[in-house]
Amino acid sequence: MTLELLSSNKCFGGWNKRYRHRSRTLDCEMVFGIYLPPQAVRGAKLPVVYWLSGLTCTDENFMHKAGAQRLAAELGLVLVTPDTSPRGPGVPDDPEGAWDFGLGAGFYVDATQHPWAQHYRMHDYVVRELPALIEAEFPVSELRAISGHSMGGHGAMVCALRNPGRYRSVSAFAPIGNPISSPWGEKAFTHLLGDDHATWKPWDACALIAATRGKDCERLPILVDQGEDDEFVDLQLKPEVLRASAETSGYPLTLRRQPGYDHSYYFVASFIEDHLRYHAQHLAQPSA
Amino acid sequence: MTLELLSSNKCFGGWNKRYRHRSRTLDCEMVFGIYLPPQAVRGAKLPVVYWLSGLTCTDENFMHKAGAQRLAAELGLVLVTPDTSPRGPGVPDDPEGAWDFGLGAGFYVDATQHPWAQHYRMHDYVVRELPALIEAEFPVSELRAISGHSMGGHGAMVCALRNPGRYRSVSAFAPIGNPISSPWGEKAFTHLLGDDHATWKPWDACALIAATRGKDCERLPILVDQGEDDEFVDLQLKPEVLRASAETSGYPLTLRRQPGYDHSYYFVASFIEDHLRYHAQHLAQPSA
Repeated sequence: MTLELLSSNKCFGGWNKRYRHRSRTLDCEMVFGIYLPPQAVRGAKLPVVYWLSGLTCTDENFMHKAGAQRLAAELGLVLVTPDTSPRGPGVPDDPEGAWDFGLGAGFYVDATQHPWAQHYRMHDYVVRELPALIEAEFPVSELRAISGHSMGGHGAMVCALRNPGRYRSVSAFAPIGNPISSPWGEKAFTHLLGDDHATWKPWDACALIAATRGKDCERLPILVDQGEDDEFVDLQLKPEVLRASAETSGYPLTLRRQPGYDHSYYFVASFIEDHLRYHAQHLAQPSA
Repeated sequence: MTLELLSSNKCFGGWNKRYRHRSRTLDCEMVFGIYLPPQAVRGAKLPVVYWLSGLTCTDENFMHKAGAQRLAAELGLVLVTPDTSPRGPGVPDDPEGAWDFGLGAGFYVDATQHPWAQHYRMHDYVVRELPALIEAEFPVSELRAISGHSMGGHGAMVCALRNPGRYRSVSAFAPIGNPISSPWGEKAFTHLLGDDHATWKPWDACALIAATRGKDCERLPILVDQGEDDEFVDLQLKPEVLRASAETSGYPLTLRRQPGYDHSYYFVASFIEDHLRYHAQHLAQPSA
């Protein structure tokens, strides 16, 4: 059995489900969430929005708190929420048990360092293994969008920037925009990628945006919302570095600063409608 | 200081806040949640929808999971979420530590039995002390509506039925409709109210509905949604007993059975829009 169904709840006329499967990429069992809107239940092949959550989260936070199913049901989108790290027996955690690295904090990169490299390959999992599974087992098309929050916003941008053509659209809420210069990113990348900072740049949205300059590759527009009262904005998230990087490179970035909003899911819930309509619009356009 | 602010998160242009206060009624410190929509921030005096949650919940479940703030912001409603029981040092819990009675399971009655009577007076708290506090401290009118889920659906109906004129409207999701004949209700009422079943009836929606028959009192219409795949429907919730009681008494009850839905907050989220629009409509009507 490829997929073990853990739960199934009717929601806005569709179904919110959780599945467990064995991941070859991560060498452990993984759980993911999927929302199948009413159109999927009726047999349509629908586009998929992948959502990457932030530090300490699992596949469940977004499905519980963002209010996204209402819109997915209206717009005919499948939502898929992977977990935020490998888990289970034998998967190493932060040596000091901190919440900002290790379990619940895989940072959506492919680790190269011992003991992380065996399991911490979340980029490969999110970009390839999980979509292949979803596209084989569920009534979905090969049209994909990706979004996420905080560490997951970093993940979404990096997935889209590293894999031109794989996503129709990308957005982020309060992303770690420049992880190679943020304490969270520096800690994670040192463990997962080692001390050579040159190996970090292919996992940094700002560096990836800079690298597109002058190249004749796809430059997928990025939509970012950032709360102005987010307690992590200056030290960890650095939206202005992201903006400067995009401006220098002529990269299409829409960065919206939202007065009064913080880093919580109350912020995500307040603007998820804009993001899902943005994705639905791009997913509905004919192929280039 | 009457109110201690615990958290404040901007949400759909308004503010989701949590406060702690000393409750005289419950003889302990209590936490509640309040959503103040943008109209309240601008100084309008708005009606309040009180939401009573179910077994094991706190003030937070509804605010996290129901997606209600979007609608409250649109409709100009304040939302208030009390906790589901007294809490804190000295507040007794279920003798066997079960989840279906005691802490997180106050059943919205006023206990008469030792050791419960000192603290377990959730009805009085929800109907009088908390609204008095809300109406003194926040920009709200004296127009009130009440709703809830499961144990809180029972609570909402009983609050409205016992206090004619106090609420403009009442609704419930999957309420314990006839607690005097459900195992959850029997356990709680035996502890809180004692062995004399005659003392239970004033806390049972079916008995209260029956008692309105032939009387010239206000009969506030009740809107109920019930998922048809709710695992608790037959043993604990008994919507058909509620329906029969209303039919016998000519009481205005709208009971909607929703195919495929279960007892979770995914069900509540799917239909909260209907309920909040229902309450907003009643709250907007001129006084009788």
